[in-house]
Amino acid sequence: MKIFAYGIRKDEEPALKEWMEKHPNVEVDFTDELLTPETAKYAKGADAVDVYQQLDYTPETLTALHDLGINKMSLRNVGTDNIDFDTARKFDFQISNVPVYSPNAIAEHSMIQLSRLLRQTKAMDAKVAKHDLRWAPTIGREMRMQTVGVIGTGHIGRVAIKILQGFGAKVIAYDKFQNEEIAKQGLYVDSLDDLYAQADAISLYVPGVKENDRMINADAIAKMKDGVVIVNVARGNLVDTDAVIAGLDSGKVAAFAMDVYEDEVGLFNEDWSNKEFPDARIADLIDRENVLVTPHTAFYTTKAVYEMVTQSMDAALAFIEGEQPAIAVEY
Amino acid sequence: MKIFAYGIRKDEEPALKEWMEKHPNVEVDFTDELLTPETAKYAKGADAVDVYQQLDYTPETLTALHDLGINKMSLRNVGTDNIDFDTARKFDFQISNVPVYSPNAIAEHSMIQLSRLLRQTKAMDAKVAKHDLRWAPTIGREMRMQTVGVIGTGHIGRVAIKILQGFGAKVIAYDKFQNEEIAKQGLYVDSLDDLYAQADAISLYVPGVKENDRMINADAIAKMKDGVVIVNVARGNLVDTDAVIAGLDSGKVAAFAMDVYEDEVGLFNEDWSNKEFPDARIADLIDRENVLVTPHTAFYTTKAVYEMVTQSMDAALAFIEGEQPAIAVEY
Repeated sequence: MKIFAYGIRKDEEPALKEWMEKHPNVEVDFTDELLTPETAKYAKGADAVDVYQQLDYTPETLTALHDLGINKMSLRNVGTDNIDFDTARKFDFQISNVPVYSPNAIAEHSMIQLSRLLRQTKAMDAKVAKHDLRWAPTIGREMRMQTVGVIGTGHIGRVAIKILQGFGAKVIAYDKFQNEEIAKQGLYVDSLDDLYAQADAISLYVPGVKENDRMINADAIAKMKDGVVIVNVARGNLVDTDAVIAGLDSGKVAAFAMDVYEDEVGLFNEDWSNKEFPDARIADLIDRENVLVTPHTAFYTTKAVYEMVTQSMDAALAFIEGEQPAIAVEY
Repeated sequence: MKIFAYGIRKDEEPALKEWMEKHPNVEVDFTDELLTPETAKYAKGADAVDVYQQLDYTPETLTALHDLGINKMSLRNVGTDNIDFDTARKFDFQISNVPVYSPNAIAEHSMIQLSRLLRQTKAMDAKVAKHDLRWAPTIGREMRMQTVGVIGTGHIGRVAIKILQGFGAKVIAYDKFQNEEIAKQGLYVDSLDDLYAQADAISLYVPGVKENDRMINADAIAKMKDGVVIVNVARGNLVDTDAVIAGLDSGKVAAFAMDVYEDEVGLFNEDWSNKEFPDARIADLIDRENVLVTPHTAFYTTKAVYEMVTQSMDAALAFIEGEQPAIAVEY
């Protein structure tokens, strides 16, 4: 049995090597190159491939695998929209993805960024970096003193609530689809308007579906408390960026953290240090002392990477052994 | 009844004004200047003074107050070692301090810094600041995956434990004086050596008494796990700075956060941006991407400042009304 893995980054190697040690009967080879019609030949002799890339899985790529007798493909990530499913169907491809790798990675990041905004760590770090060690006036607010509004109480939102409760913050929550445990705790408010009116800080954990598009717009911000802190680690399209910038300018919004951005594809995970951003608002946001920008890294932890590698390799092996892994993609 | 307050900073004014509104029968006046033999005259006509300063309360200063008929002095901070108690005794001074203002302020700061070290936020922030939005290789570790050793389980250590448990981390603890609740939870290990052997991260909450002096030295670090993360928000003398720097250089210590420093008096809360640090190690530590330096700001939150102002003013009023406040200093 052989699995060939594409696009393996340095930070994925420890998890892959651990998997290899646990499966001495499976031959594994890998490259840091992505899967293309040209690199498909590296997989010759393999029974399945393990992949993770933004690059399209084109008809040519899938045909090249098929020509090598390979029709099992395990993705290390969630997204499958770059797969040409018509070709995959034609060649009877078995495909899996990793829909859940670590809700904690994202929930922790959101709460770390919230606590940093409240503490003004960016301003304090900047002072320390230039050897100004005076503390005033860079005073912090405590997590436990805040009423935090959690919008969306799926896996990630619920982990965030546990973290907030550990800090001793008062949690209020809103979700169209209420979770039984959160309801039992009495955390739900009746409407988003109620949440906006009561929350000192607001963090988002809802999907980027059409009805949520730009939910955090000028109208919503107007309903929030003066000096509100907003955190978005969920989806870029949830936030009307111009409205948040206007809120930051007026002081209505005291601070803002974003790990996602409405136009992030082609912007994040690129090096812009020697060229202009396609969107000037990003440079403006990065420069502000009360804004924390991270380039969609909330998911990016050793635990998440371990899960992505391990679950995808397990699924590839299951395919080879004629089993149907729970994370097989139905298409 | 009149209270005169010295050294009032901008960030203390809201709490002071709130106290004044709640006590319309008490006349309150204040200055941002410190209490000296020269400024003592500002307090003329007052029944008590409210103070906070590193500057010594000298025989001359206390005599100047006595000459105005004032022998009630409420400190907004803990430390009383800058008071000349012989003179205070001679003039029968009644003195109070604020021993507990917000254990959460310090516990929260320690856990925010720990989570930031694990997430490599300093390295990621530096990349973003120069418009490099690539995430690899700046990968984070999750709080929930860590075994965190809490040394000292007084007020602050116990709040830190609650925060860690909210994150889902595994907590182990050590204290010579065991707390019943922590013991009931089964968190204590038998010795510091056991804690050093098991902990992925270690955070300190013990006093700077002689027997704890430089407890985190080369010997202790050698007993820790490779890649250990160390956080010190407690007292500067707990840590042998050279040993930690050697650990950072060798990679034994993956990351370090310090809010206190063995020689911090005269160093912290000063502006060194246009002059040399008296201690070159500080510049070195500030420059490292895996080290977070804050200048004794863990306490510095709006809640803590509110408590310092409110409790001290309450005590001053109690003295004036012939009562003995619970926070009166016995000397």
